[in-house]
Order: sequence, then C-alpha cells, then structure tokens
Amino acid sequence: MNAELTQHLEDVQDDLVRMTQLVGSAMNRATQALLDADLAMAESVIAADAQVDLLFSDLEDQCLDAIALNSPSRGELPELIGALRIAASLERMGDLAEHVAKQARLRYPRLSIPQELRGTFAEMGGLAEAIVSKTGSVISSKNVALAADIGRHDGEVDRLHRELFTIVLSPAWPHGVEAAIDVTLLSRYYERYADHAVSVTRRVITIVTGEPYVGVSL
Amino acid sequence: MNAELTQHLEDVQDDLVRMTQLVGSAMNRATQALLDADLAMAESVIAADAQVDLLFSDLEDQCLDAIALNSPSRGELPELIGALRIAASLERMGDLAEHVAKQARLRYPRLSIPQELRGTFAEMGGLAEAIVSKTGSVISSKNVALAADIGRHDGEVDRLHRELFTIVLSPAWPHGVEAAIDVTLLSRYYERYADHAVSVTRRVITIVTGEPYVGVSL
Repeated sequence: MNAELTQHLEDVQDDLVRMTQLVGSAMNRATQALLDADLAMAESVIAADAQVDLLFSDLEDQCLDAIALNSPSRGELPELIGALRIAASLERMGDLAEHVAKQARLRYPRLSIPQELRGTFAEMGGLAEAIVSKTGSVISSKNVALAADIGRHDGEVDRLHRELFTIVLSPAWPHGVEAAIDVTLLSRYYERYADHAVSVTRRVITIVTGEPYVGVSL
Repeated sequence: MNAELTQHLEDVQDDLVRMTQLVGSAMNRATQALLDADLAMAESVIAADAQVDLLFSDLEDQCLDAIALNSPSRGELPELIGALRIAASLERMGDLAEHVAKQARLRYPRLSIPQELRGTFAEMGGLAEAIVSKTGSVISSKNVALAADIGRHDGEVDRLHRELFTIVLSPAWPHGVEAAIDVTLLSRYYERYADHAVSVTRRVITIVTGEPYVGVSL
C-alpha cells in the first residue's frame, strides 16, 4: 500500500473513532434525558445528530477521494469500502440515540417509562456505553479480542429486551397500552444500537482477518 | 467511461432491479401471510431472504471488481458507491419483509392483527408493492419523475402508520397490550420499508443529477 493511501486510511479511521465518540455521547445523554425527563438534554441530543451526519458525509467523500487518487488494488478495496459500511452503521446508531431522545421529549414533563423500569433502562444505557466505547477501541487498535466482550454485552442487551417484553405483556402490567408501546420501542432502539455495534465489530474483523463478513440480523 | 466499466455498471443495475423484484415479492407474500395467517407462505418468505443476502454479497464483489479493474475517475465513483448503498437499503427491505413474515408465524394459527385492521394492512401492503415496483423502474430507466409518485405513496404509508397508532392508543381499543404492540411493530416495518425505497430513489436522483443526497430519517 502506498504512503498516501495509508495516510488516507488513518484519517478515515480517526473519523470513524470520532463517530463512535459522538454516537456514544449521544446515547449516554439520551439515556439521561429518558431517566430524568430532561427536556434540555433531549433537545441537545436531537440537535447534535447533524454533526454525525456531516462527519458521515465527509467520510464518504474522503473514501471516494482516496480511491480515485490511489487506484487501490482489489485487495486494498475492502478496507475502504468496509469503512463506508462502518460509517453507515455508526450514523444509524446516532439516529437511534436521537429516537430515544425524541421519545423522552414526546412525554415531557412526564417520564416516558414507568418508575420501576428506570433501573432496567439505566442498565441498557450502561451496556450501550460499554459497547460503543469498545467498538471505538476495536476500530482504532484493531484489537479484535474485544469482540468477545462486545458480543457478551450485546447478549445482555438482548436479555433485557426480552425481559421488558415479558413485563409489558404480563396481565399484571398496570400502565396501559401507550406505556407498553413506549417501553417496547425504546427497548428496541437500544437493542438495535447494540446490534449495529456488533455489525461494526464484525466488519473490522473481516478487514483484519480477511474472513468473510457474517451479517447481523438488524 | 470505458466500455468495460459501462458493462459492469449495467450488470450491477440489473442485479439491483432483480433485488427490488425479490424484496417486492417478499413483502407481497409476507402481507398475504399476515392477512391470512398462512404459515407456509410465512415460512417461504423467511427462507427466501437468504437469496437477497446472497445477491447483495455478489453485488458488493462485483462493484469492488469493477473499481479495481477500471480505476474509475472521481466523477465515476459515486455511481458505483451509490449502487452499494442502494443494495444495502434493498437488503434491509428484504429483512423488513422477513420481520412481517416472522410476526405472522409467531401468532399462527391466530391472525397477528385484529380482523378490523386487515383492510389497513392490505392497503399498506398494496402501497409497498407500488413503491417497490416504481423503485425498480427508477433504477432501470433512471426515470426520476417516478420519485414524486413514490414520495406520495410513502406519505400515504406514513398516514396509515399514524392512524394505526391512534387506533391502538384509543381508550376503546379492545384487544389488549400484546395486539397493540404487534400492530405497532408491523406498521413500523411497512413504514420503514417505504422509507428505504424513498432513500433508494434519492440515491438514484443524486447519481443522475449530481445534486447532493438528501437523507431520509429511517
């Protein structure tokens, strides 16, 4: 690989890590907005998503420039195209954080979730934070050993997602249909956020090992 | 553009059109499975999604081959990269059809939706069919005038989606929490299917006109 292409790829990688930081912070703050019915926090998450979209669009331009200027070989292309796929997943994670914030805003000044489920959503938020932070490390260090951690956290998110389903469907659920739908959609946003992070990790592994990409059902 | 690259792009375009046909047929049959609680139909949709995934993966290889073999110019790249983005949206539309089929399977032998909402879901299915068929035409003919039709159909899907929300949240809703969640998730699958088709159309317009891509909030 020529020096210019290597430099391009390093710049792209820096931007991908920056995207993980932005969408990590967005989901963190969205969770806070959800747990505290904090309107200002929700609004700030919604406003900040434009930054992620801009970085995504810049990154696409960068990758196209890198390809046009360096005529990469067939073996060098998967890393560049993989970066575009990773950026698309990260952009989508930003949207999911924004969805959580919009749900918090929709029910303001009420809490969007029943008091007794705050702990479960706090846990989901904590797992999302761990997952996205480790995803950033996988991208920057190519340390694919972290993939096992990410997979385990994702399994925890799935377990909480199923648990919430069971709770809202129980005959003893006292909060009615609207709250049940709110909880279901919110839980699904966290679950898909985690799935996208797993998909990013698998893309990095594909690039590092050259093994075929195994898709995640999103 | 050299003759070989032109040929590559024509092959890619044929595969994209073929993908619209597969995911169109999948959503059609998923709707049928949903309306009639038809387990065999649901299973066939779920099994067929592997074909879409395979076509998607072939298409990515084709695009990478085309880039590596032809060193396209900066101006030629957006069409190739756009094709990858379009393929990713179509693959996702296949997943959403599969989600509808899985929901039908989950409640079999019961209907997954209350009898009185069958008409609304049939309408959503019809709109999805019109949308994906026109999306195929936009890709093959580059006739971007169809975009207005697709946008209008998408607006109709959004209206039905909101209408279903209002129905399940009404105090008179007699079917309980589980049915409300089923209807909400199903309605969301159709709504997102339509949004992805709009996103595909916008990508084609970007390629044809050279105007910047305007994202769809998915």
